[in-house]
Amino acid sequence: MGKNNVLAENVLKGDVRATAQLIRRIDDGDREILPALAQIYRHAGNAYIIGFTGSPGVGKSTLVDRIITKFREDGKTVGVLAIDPTSPFSGGAILGDRIRMQRHFLDEDVFIRSLATRGKFGGLTRSTADAIVVLDAMGKDVIIVETVGVGQDEVDIVNNAHTTIVVTVPGMGDDIQAIKAGLMEIGDLFVVNKADREGSNKTVREILFMLQMNDERKRLEGWEPPVVECVATQKIGVDKVYSAILDHKLYLGDRGKNRLERIERSRILSQFMDLFREGLIERALEKIGGEEALDKVVLDIMSRSNDPYRASSEFLDAVMNDGSDSL
Amino acid sequence: MGKNNVLAENVLKGDVRATAQLIRRIDDGDREILPALAQIYRHAGNAYIIGFTGSPGVGKSTLVDRIITKFREDGKTVGVLAIDPTSPFSGGAILGDRIRMQRHFLDEDVFIRSLATRGKFGGLTRSTADAIVVLDAMGKDVIIVETVGVGQDEVDIVNNAHTTIVVTVPGMGDDIQAIKAGLMEIGDLFVVNKADREGSNKTVREILFMLQMNDERKRLEGWEPPVVECVATQKIGVDKVYSAILDHKLYLGDRGKNRLERIERSRILSQFMDLFREGLIERALEKIGGEEALDKVVLDIMSRSNDPYRASSEFLDAVMNDGSDSL
Repeated sequence: MGKNNVLAENVLKGDVRATAQLIRRIDDGDREILPALAQIYRHAGNAYIIGFTGSPGVGKSTLVDRIITKFREDGKTVGVLAIDPTSPFSGGAILGDRIRMQRHFLDEDVFIRSLATRGKFGGLTRSTADAIVVLDAMGKDVIIVETVGVGQDEVDIVNNAHTTIVVTVPGMGDDIQAIKAGLMEIGDLFVVNKADREGSNKTVREILFMLQMNDERKRLEGWEPPVVECVATQKIGVDKVYSAILDHKLYLGDRGKNRLERIERSRILSQFMDLFREGLIERALEKIGGEEALDKVVLDIMSRSNDPYRASSEFLDAVMNDGSDSL
Repeated sequence: MGKNNVLAENVLKGDVRATAQLIRRIDDGDREILPALAQIYRHAGNAYIIGFTGSPGVGKSTLVDRIITKFREDGKTVGVLAIDPTSPFSGGAILGDRIRMQRHFLDEDVFIRSLATRGKFGGLTRSTADAIVVLDAMGKDVIIVETVGVGQDEVDIVNNAHTTIVVTVPGMGDDIQAIKAGLMEIGDLFVVNKADREGSNKTVREILFMLQMNDERKRLEGWEPPVVECVATQKIGVDKVYSAILDHKLYLGDRGKNRLERIERSRILSQFMDLFREGLIERALEKIGGEEALDKVVLDIMSRSNDPYRASSEFLDAVMNDGSDSL
């Protein structure tokens, strides 16, 4: 408790090493730091959170690198969380701290880390939420979260950002179109990167068309997501992307106050539910007898003397001792 | 109960309409069908399950279409579950029943459905496991599950198949390489599709190199994953992919018996845990007072008079009444 207390204090002072340590332990799924997170939580809530998502290979990291530079030119401090697609076996980060952003490493007002953990009970959504709290509490003005936008986890993560940016490129296949349709409803801003490629105008028109189809969204939010073309590697159009981000930030502080409140609620609810769910399954497994009980039930099901539906219902009754809602 | 009983009986007779209805209700997250699933479960466990995964746009559906044809030529009945990347808002399937497989719709021994549900507490992994049970119990010899291999859910789904096939194409970007590295450890068979494109040999060599690096995997399983080139659209190399699948099936029945048992255990454990987790959170929320209690805790956290870590710990104590392990 004492050590964690000091760790929390140092994070609140903006200490980079303490912050790095805390985030590493979040990524390791170390539950002993929960009191430290509880301690710093009340100092969080000031950062502006931006989510970048899109299919693999659309150039998200390069674009994020350019946007970091823009925020730094405006005197803002920046934290970046790069969410890595992880090996389900080794559990390690594959990309490390994104190579394309490395030139910011000497700038002490930019803090970049990769997150990769998918804990047994917790998962990526929870560790990202915790890491956002840390960067927020250590004093970063802007927090950028970058994910590959295919898995539901990744979509959930950016969907809880203040401004969600969907990045795409001209002319990709059918499945990509489908995924883009899935991302269509979460984007506050759409970027067509590598816009010097053939078909960029067509892609812009397609996105605008899909957005127009999505009437409900517009009615709910009073914000028309802009579609911006850029070539991040050549720094073309980056200013437009940056202004669009600032426009959306202004909107949330003004006409979009209800939307802002909904985002905050949604982020808090997700984080609470992830923690609750994680603790629940952990304690429930203890109560029913842990691994040993699980091994036995799996063998029973394998031999078809039980089935997963009945077995889970029996376990639930044992854990909740309320006898309600049996199968 | 009576209606579900009849439904279960009809599925066991191989009735296509009953099967379609049951799978639709799984996809709708209808919990009333759990007794029907429990009823048919003991008749499942005979099908051979094949998972196809890979990044969007690599041509998985076309390849699956060709492989369906091969199994049909060998007199096998086939069930296909196409797992759709879904909109987190609308919740609907985007691709519908994959267009590229439609020519099999007239064949009553091929049953193709898309799954898209990501229920509030359940999710795609669970509905896929349930749908596999249904297709298995209705008598399909082979069940093919196709997912987009980026999200963890999708990886988990195919990882529980008997034979997991990772599909890729020559020359994709950096992130793709990273994801491929994540998929490297789950593939029993690697297919380089669109192998008439430049760089196919290089991609094959890269995969072989990465597989060689992965010593542990080889030691554990005694199976060297083959890397097969094909051009599914032109039916080139499809026979080689098909033989490699049959080789792996033979291996599992012979030298790979331990591996086969581990796969079965893992699939059963996943399905049980998903059901247990889902029931647990549902009952726990009831016990603490449902939506109303959640609304209150979110407001408390928003005003910083509580934090998610302390709040979840308090809720856990209330649900489990065991006072252990408080924050």
